[in-house]
Amino acid sequence: MRATVIYGPRDVRVEEVPDPQVREPHDAVVRVTHACICGSDLWAYQGVASRKPGQRIGHEFLGVVTETGPDVHGVAPGDVVIAPFVWSDGTCAYCLEGLHTSCPRGGFWGEPGSDGGQGEAVRVPHADGTLVKIPPGLPENTMTALLALSDVMSTGHHAALAAGVRPGVTAAVVGDGAVGLCGVLAAQRLGAARIIMCGRHASRTAIAGRFGATDIVPARGQDAVDAVRDLTGGEGAHAVLEAVGTEQSMRTAIHIARDGGAVGYVGVPHGGSAGVDISDMFGRNIALRGGVAPARAYIPELLADVLAGRLDPGPVFDTVTGLDGVPAGYEAMNGRRALKVLIRMEGAS
Amino acid sequence: MRATVIYGPRDVRVEEVPDPQVREPHDAVVRVTHACICGSDLWAYQGVASRKPGQRIGHEFLGVVTETGPDVHGVAPGDVVIAPFVWSDGTCAYCLEGLHTSCPRGGFWGEPGSDGGQGEAVRVPHADGTLVKIPPGLPENTMTALLALSDVMSTGHHAALAAGVRPGVTAAVVGDGAVGLCGVLAAQRLGAARIIMCGRHASRTAIAGRFGATDIVPARGQDAVDAVRDLTGGEGAHAVLEAVGTEQSMRTAIHIARDGGAVGYVGVPHGGSAGVDISDMFGRNIALRGGVAPARAYIPELLADVLAGRLDPGPVFDTVTGLDGVPAGYEAMNGRRALKVLIRMEGAS
Repeated sequence: MRATVIYGPRDVRVEEVPDPQVREPHDAVVRVTHACICGSDLWAYQGVASRKPGQRIGHEFLGVVTETGPDVHGVAPGDVVIAPFVWSDGTCAYCLEGLHTSCPRGGFWGEPGSDGGQGEAVRVPHADGTLVKIPPGLPENTMTALLALSDVMSTGHHAALAAGVRPGVTAAVVGDGAVGLCGVLAAQRLGAARIIMCGRHASRTAIAGRFGATDIVPARGQDAVDAVRDLTGGEGAHAVLEAVGTEQSMRTAIHIARDGGAVGYVGVPHGGSAGVDISDMFGRNIALRGGVAPARAYIPELLADVLAGRLDPGPVFDTVTGLDGVPAGYEAMNGRRALKVLIRMEGAS
Repeated sequence: MRATVIYGPRDVRVEEVPDPQVREPHDAVVRVTHACICGSDLWAYQGVASRKPGQRIGHEFLGVVTETGPDVHGVAPGDVVIAPFVWSDGTCAYCLEGLHTSCPRGGFWGEPGSDGGQGEAVRVPHADGTLVKIPPGLPENTMTALLALSDVMSTGHHAALAAGVRPGVTAAVVGDGAVGLCGVLAAQRLGAARIIMCGRHASRTAIAGRFGATDIVPARGQDAVDAVRDLTGGEGAHAVLEAVGTEQSMRTAIHIARDGGAVGYVGVPHGGSAGVDISDMFGRNIALRGGVAPARAYIPELLADVLAGRLDPGPVFDTVTGLDGVPAGYEAMNGRRALKVLIRMEGAS
C-alpha cells in the first residue's frame, strides 16, 4: 500500500510500504477513507519535534474495517469506524476512568513500528478498545465532521472541560487554528455565554464567528491581554482555552484568566515552562489543567451530537486533497495557506 | 503599643508604634491575644521577599474587638475573633464566590500603611467582611488550634481541595512545614485513604503520623519521586499537596502525581516556573491548581470542626513566646530549631 513517511524537516513523501496485517489477536486492519493533516504534525514537519527518518505520520482517520484478529469482538469487517489519535486497550484502570491517553498498552499512530493515519490502511492494535463504529452510508459532509472527532474536536472539547466552561461563563480561546476553532464550538456547546477568540487570521476568525465566538481579538501577547481585559470589565475570562503551545500563548492565556479561573491547555507545549507565570497564577488562584486529550472518551458523546445535527466542526477543513497531495498539503498548512487539509483516499465513498 | 517591625534581612524588632484607631467607618480595632510566625514570614526575614524598612509583619492573629466604626455591625467590642491572613470586604463578587483573596478592597496584614499581626493591636479594615467571631472563654488549647485557621490550616485545606482530595484517594504531601502538616490533616479530613508525607525532619514527620500520614518518605527530589512511585505500584498519588514553593518541590510534586491527578500548590512560589514540568504535565494530564488560600471562606467550616473536637492543628506550634521573644522566634524558625512559634501576648486570657 501507499502511505506518508517523514524523513526529516520539510521532507514528507508518499511511498509504497508493506500492507498492514493482523499481527496480534486484538488487532484490526482499517482501510482509510478519510484522513487529515494536524497542526501538531507541523511540529514534526518543521523539525521542532523530532522523528526518526522513515517514521509514518498522521494520527486522524476514518475508514472501513477489512480484517480482525480472533480477540476482536466489537468491530467486524465492513464496519465504518473512527480512530482516536491514540490507541488504547479499553480495559485498564485509566481507560475505565476515561483517560485513555495514559493506557499502558496505548500508543500514538506513526510511532516507530506502527502505521500512520495518512496512508491507505492502518493496523489498529487493541481494536475493541480503540475504534468507534459509526453508521454506514453517511453523507460526505457528515464524514468530514466526524473526521474532526479523531483529534481536533475532541481536543477542543478537552480544553473547554479543562478550562471549566459551564453555562453562563465568559470563555476565551487563544489560537485560531483548527483546535482553537473547535474549542469555540465546544465552549458554545457547554453553554458559555460569551466566547472571545484571540486570533489574527481573518479567514479563521470568520469561522470562529460562525462557530459561536461573540468577540474577536486580533492580537497577541500584551495587546491581547489588554483587549480581553477591556472586554471583560478588567476581570478576564472565567475559562481560557490555550490551543497553541508556545511560551507566549501560555502567558497570554494565564494573564487573561479571571481570578479563580482556569486555563485549559491543549497546545502541545513547545515553549517549555517559561510562559507559565506561576507568581501570577498563585496570587490569583488560576488553575492550569489539560494536556493530551483522551479523544476516545469523548467520541461517543460528540458523535451523537454530530449525527443529530447539533455539532459540525467540518468547516475547519478548508482544503481537500488525495494521498498524493499530502506533501503539498503540509507545505500549504505550514505556509498558512491552508487551515486544515482533508485527505480523501482514492476510491473512498 | 508595641509591635514587630521588619527593617531588612534578619532584622526584626519589637518597637513602640502608634496605637491603632478606627479610621474608616468599616474599621475595627482588635487587641491581639494570640499571634504567630509563619514560614512565609521567613521569606521576608531571609530577604528573599522584599519589604520596605519599617513595615509591620505578621498575618495570623486572634484577639478581642476593642473598638468598631459606625458601619460595623457583625462584631462588637468584647467579641473574640479570628482574622484570616488577608482582609476583604465580604460583599464583592469575589468574596461572594469564596475567593476573598481577590477582593479589590482587600489587603495583606503588614503591607505598608497597615498593622501586622505580631503586635499588641491591629486596625482591621472591612471588619464585617474579615473577622470571624468565636465563642468567649475557650480553653487555651482550643485557642491555639483556632489560631492555625488564620493561615496554615486554611492553607493546608486549600491545597487538599485544589489537589482534588476525595474519599478513597492516595494523597501525597510535599513539605513537612506547618502547612504541609496541616495538609495531612486536611487530606485525612476529606477522606484520603492513604497519605504519603514527603519530609526529612523526623520531629515533623512524627507529627504528620499523628495527623494521619500513613507513609513517610524522608527524601527530596528524584529520591522522593522514586519512593512514592514504589509505594503506589508505579502510578503516583491522585492528589499531591505542594507546600514548599521551591523549584525542586514543585518538580517533585508534579512527578509524583498519578496520570490525570492534580497538584494543589500553596507554597509561595520562589523558584519561578522552572519546576513546572509542562511536558510531563501535558502527556499525563496533570492539573496544577491552588495559590493563595481564601482562608476567610474556609474558617467557618474548619472552626466548627475544631469546636466539635474533630480537628486539632494545634500541634504545629512547638514553641511559645511573648511579644519580646519574636526576634528570637524568627531566628529559631529560620534555623529550623522551631517548627512554628506561637506568640502569647502579655495579659492574654
